[in-house]
Amino acid sequence: MNITIIGAGNVGGTLGRRWAHNGHQVTFGVRDPHSPKVQEVLRTAGANARATSVREAATAAECILLATPWTAVQDAIQSAGNLADKIVIDCTNPLAPGLRGLALGHTTSGGEQVARWAAGARVVKAFNMTGAKNMANPVYGAQQVTMCICGDDAEAKTTVGGLAAELGFEIIDTGSLTTARYPEPLAMLWIHLAYVQGLGPDFAFKVMRRP
Amino acid sequence: MNITIIGAGNVGGTLGRRWAHNGHQVTFGVRDPHSPKVQEVLRTAGANARATSVREAATAAECILLATPWTAVQDAIQSAGNLADKIVIDCTNPLAPGLRGLALGHTTSGGEQVARWAAGARVVKAFNMTGAKNMANPVYGAQQVTMCICGDDAEAKTTVGGLAAELGFEIIDTGSLTTARYPEPLAMLWIHLAYVQGLGPDFAFKVMRRP
Repeated sequence: MNITIIGAGNVGGTLGRRWAHNGHQVTFGVRDPHSPKVQEVLRTAGANARATSVREAATAAECILLATPWTAVQDAIQSAGNLADKIVIDCTNPLAPGLRGLALGHTTSGGEQVARWAAGARVVKAFNMTGAKNMANPVYGAQQVTMCICGDDAEAKTTVGGLAAELGFEIIDTGSLTTARYPEPLAMLWIHLAYVQGLGPDFAFKVMRRP
Repeated sequence: MNITIIGAGNVGGTLGRRWAHNGHQVTFGVRDPHSPKVQEVLRTAGANARATSVREAATAAECILLATPWTAVQDAIQSAGNLADKIVIDCTNPLAPGLRGLALGHTTSGGEQVARWAAGARVVKAFNMTGAKNMANPVYGAQQVTMCICGDDAEAKTTVGGLAAELGFEIIDTGSLTTARYPEPLAMLWIHLAYVQGLGPDFAFKVMRRP
């Protein structure tokens, strides 16, 4: 395929390099095709890769990977010109500055609301990200289902983490209660996959570590 | 421990039963302790479990698991009385009716915004939920890192799914582009765990199926 990558950073560079090695024709659409960073990506990507302007790269593409920081996405799309009927792969995330969270559509969580309602309680978000069958048995062969917990009281988290561990879960502490904004959508993803997309309840999310 | 479970449904019933079997004193706080559903949970939970009113159950507890539907959470907390300094485990999710998504803090996504900007393009959300090291090598021993993709054009999703599969990812199709609201927070969770919580970039999320 003719694949255009808009952006040549970590993600765009890595994916473009691998697709070029696999035999696809990869064009990086960038502001400055002659920059040292882009030239280094091209050098490692080999003969199937080239770099040009965003507009030229987008015009020729069958498939366009958007791989810029979120703040540059709108400009990149405008630079690309007419995208009607093109396949556009959006691999960006609307990150707010400083790893503070998402800049779009994501402003609170059930966990934070519960803490506002339950005045003074030491609220821990836990046991929300999977279904009852996994609560009954979170051990899949040699692997444990992951359970994220978060909260603002360290002692309470230790207690709750212990209650989860004794049931067979692997515990991941995601930090403060505001991080309930991440496992709650993950719960919604589990529910959606299980009951809308048809996977059923016998799957779970696992934080897998590279061996 | 003295553990109170508010609600005796699938999740509350399952967790309460298992903790009771493990030797904890489990009290279900429910509207009607004599209902057939609650009595059945008690029968299977054994001698360490009992049921009473929400208020009485909450008063005696060291640790309270909130396990009602989202629409009943505020009432349950009010019924529980003073929760100051108690450990409250929130295992609820603010689900909107009919599996339509989350009712709180979760109204759009970068993927949907990109589709509004890129008029007419066949946008597929993909390659957003993990880091560049996993793009470079998503195979962990015998297991593949999961990549969620979503979009409104089936043919475009097939193409993009193929591009991900050839790199070694396991593909999960989450459905329409609106479901980008789930993998984007999952990406934020990955970033937060990697760079704030200190896990580093050598982990990934896996959709694990029960053997």
